[in-house]
Amino acid sequence: MALLVQKFGGSSVGSVDMIKRVAQRVVDSVRSGDSVVVVVSAMADTTDEMVTLAEKITSDAPDREMALLLSSGERITTALLAMAITNLGTPAVGYTGQQAGFKTTSGRHTNSRVAEIDSTRIIGELDVGKVVVVCGFQGVDENQDETVLGRGGSDLSAVALAWALKADSCEIFTDVEGVYTADPRVVPEARKIGKISPDEMLELASAGARVLYSRSVEFAKKHGVVIHCRSTFSKETGTLIQEDAAMMEAVLVRGIAHDTDQAKITIRGVPDKPGVAARIFGRMGDASINVDMIVQNTSADGVTDMSFTVPRSELKKVMAYAEPLKAEIEAREVIEDADMAKVSVVGVGMKSHSGVASTMFSALADNGINIEMISTSEIKISCVIHRDLAEEAVRVLHRAFELDAD
Amino acid sequence: MALLVQKFGGSSVGSVDMIKRVAQRVVDSVRSGDSVVVVVSAMADTTDEMVTLAEKITSDAPDREMALLLSSGERITTALLAMAITNLGTPAVGYTGQQAGFKTTSGRHTNSRVAEIDSTRIIGELDVGKVVVVCGFQGVDENQDETVLGRGGSDLSAVALAWALKADSCEIFTDVEGVYTADPRVVPEARKIGKISPDEMLELASAGARVLYSRSVEFAKKHGVVIHCRSTFSKETGTLIQEDAAMMEAVLVRGIAHDTDQAKITIRGVPDKPGVAARIFGRMGDASINVDMIVQNTSADGVTDMSFTVPRSELKKVMAYAEPLKAEIEAREVIEDADMAKVSVVGVGMKSHSGVASTMFSALADNGINIEMISTSEIKISCVIHRDLAEEAVRVLHRAFELDAD
Repeated sequence: MALLVQKFGGSSVGSVDMIKRVAQRVVDSVRSGDSVVVVVSAMADTTDEMVTLAEKITSDAPDREMALLLSSGERITTALLAMAITNLGTPAVGYTGQQAGFKTTSGRHTNSRVAEIDSTRIIGELDVGKVVVVCGFQGVDENQDETVLGRGGSDLSAVALAWALKADSCEIFTDVEGVYTADPRVVPEARKIGKISPDEMLELASAGARVLYSRSVEFAKKHGVVIHCRSTFSKETGTLIQEDAAMMEAVLVRGIAHDTDQAKITIRGVPDKPGVAARIFGRMGDASINVDMIVQNTSADGVTDMSFTVPRSELKKVMAYAEPLKAEIEAREVIEDADMAKVSVVGVGMKSHSGVASTMFSALADNGINIEMISTSEIKISCVIHRDLAEEAVRVLHRAFELDAD
Repeated sequence: MALLVQKFGGSSVGSVDMIKRVAQRVVDSVRSGDSVVVVVSAMADTTDEMVTLAEKITSDAPDREMALLLSSGERITTALLAMAITNLGTPAVGYTGQQAGFKTTSGRHTNSRVAEIDSTRIIGELDVGKVVVVCGFQGVDENQDETVLGRGGSDLSAVALAWALKADSCEIFTDVEGVYTADPRVVPEARKIGKISPDEMLELASAGARVLYSRSVEFAKKHGVVIHCRSTFSKETGTLIQEDAAMMEAVLVRGIAHDTDQAKITIRGVPDKPGVAARIFGRMGDASINVDMIVQNTSADGVTDMSFTVPRSELKKVMAYAEPLKAEIEAREVIEDADMAKVSVVGVGMKSHSGVASTMFSALADNGINIEMISTSEIKISCVIHRDLAEEAVRVLHRAFELDAD
């Protein structure tokens, strides 16, 4: 007798057959005694198709109308899924974001934030034994205008709704079994992680693990919502994302993430005086460039080298800014390298144990993998290496930290 | 400096290029000094695709969720058209039915009626010089649940909005130049009608002319809204649908409509006693069969023949009911004929002039066209004939009433 929020993404509701399958899954939960609120995304590709339509109309779509456009996809899947659940004999209703009480606040309609959820109507439906299917990703602002929550918005809808409803669990269904110690396509021995802390999950996500979006994990952490990340296609327990101090001590490294979509820019011969870094990265920020790692070498003879990484897709934009900047700050040269990757080890145990960094660096060195940049946080160590070596590095580290052992 | 409501149907906004063209058309009106509210339908076929999706899920879709599904299509065209207009330098906003103030009332979500329009927001946007693009076909009920207006709903949205806004004209754009004296594909000399009364338009529509839906014309008649039915693809004046007594007297027959989608059922040897007709047509009504014309012959020897027409698609359903009914009312036999057509002449002038019927019957007889059923109203005479003769009959009548003359 639990209250569950179950979220199904676009790839889980991409066809009529898949919608029927999700309906069966929801009905199974209801028949085992649970109350269920379902959050759905638009069918896979629908959102991209909408964006393409808008781009054919104008290169400068008004934000308000863009949100109106983008919020139509979930309405379709919500209506169809509610029909499919009802058809299996379990009464269900479909709610838009507005009807579900999602009030958002933001200047931008296409990247808004949840301000408040008035779940009165949903609670009323649950009380009479109905399943409520809710359009993820959307809400309305104070003018009753449509808004959407931006990338990963449906996950956020589910977590926020779980919080508002004081649900026992927020189940995020995906096409994988949960969060793994490393990408199973790269490391066949990778194991599913039973429990992980929100902080570790955030670091894994930012380091390249694509299971969950950071925004929803941050919300869950802040409000104490337990996320259960599990597979649409199996009944196996997946990965629980929750604070659990007892468990945390036991493990040094929870998992390894990698991201092969990195580019590195090095500015050589930068005069080592105050304000230069601020100027470089201020300029990148103004251009909305997503700078990831930044490393500055020790100064020698009053000049230094500065390296940073960006997603590969932004390299061209960076270089357009970097050349004039070079002259401005009187640097010697700007070097780009498009073929980089980032490999990271994550674990809260690092906080209280030393030796993780040296184990990591040794393991890479022993296998002839050259480290080009290093960056550390309290619970993560990331190394930038050449892209061709990324998968090998993940396997090497998975062995070095004995993540394949129980 | 007029306030115009312009309605564009699904075939006018069926692609990005067509949406751009409609945008240009709207902007032309704005540049010539008019204020414009645009009502749009979903892209052609979208609604049918939605219905097909729902049918694949369940044969018994809940009405509320069906409305949620069907109301998503207009949101897409509304958003895209607002973007396209803005892109041409004229600020535009897109409104859902709810935002446009459409409140509906009905037990059925998929066939609701306009209860009230609160046009405060639209007026506010017009006052600051914006074009307002509104989702046709949709509104919300007292629970803020999505509702749709049923077949022809977008036309009705436009007419109702024109009334609420006290607009100078409600322009319904179609793929033809207006209302014609007969179908130009059948009668090449058919002329565009400059003005027609709502009553005549209603009779033409019910007789098979497919330019406008009866519901919107009824609303326009009741509330004195002038409809301008015109082409999306030309700037020519189309057909004005308005009460205009002066004009009405001058013409006997305004136009000829035909409908080749008719089937005839004859019940022979029906005992001529009270209640038999009520039982037959009560049964058809219970089965939601759309009976059109009904003719009963004079009784002879206490028995009579009863004929009626239905859309061809409903013939099978009728026959399933007719056979048991035959035994019940002790009729002799039931004969069906699937290949019928209806040809009608319409004109308010008939009210005060005789001779139209005899001209019609003679013209058909002179050309060897046999009349199988006749039905008359104050301003319309309809004849049921064999389907193969329908087009010939329309041409014959067009000549007989000199509709090709100025």
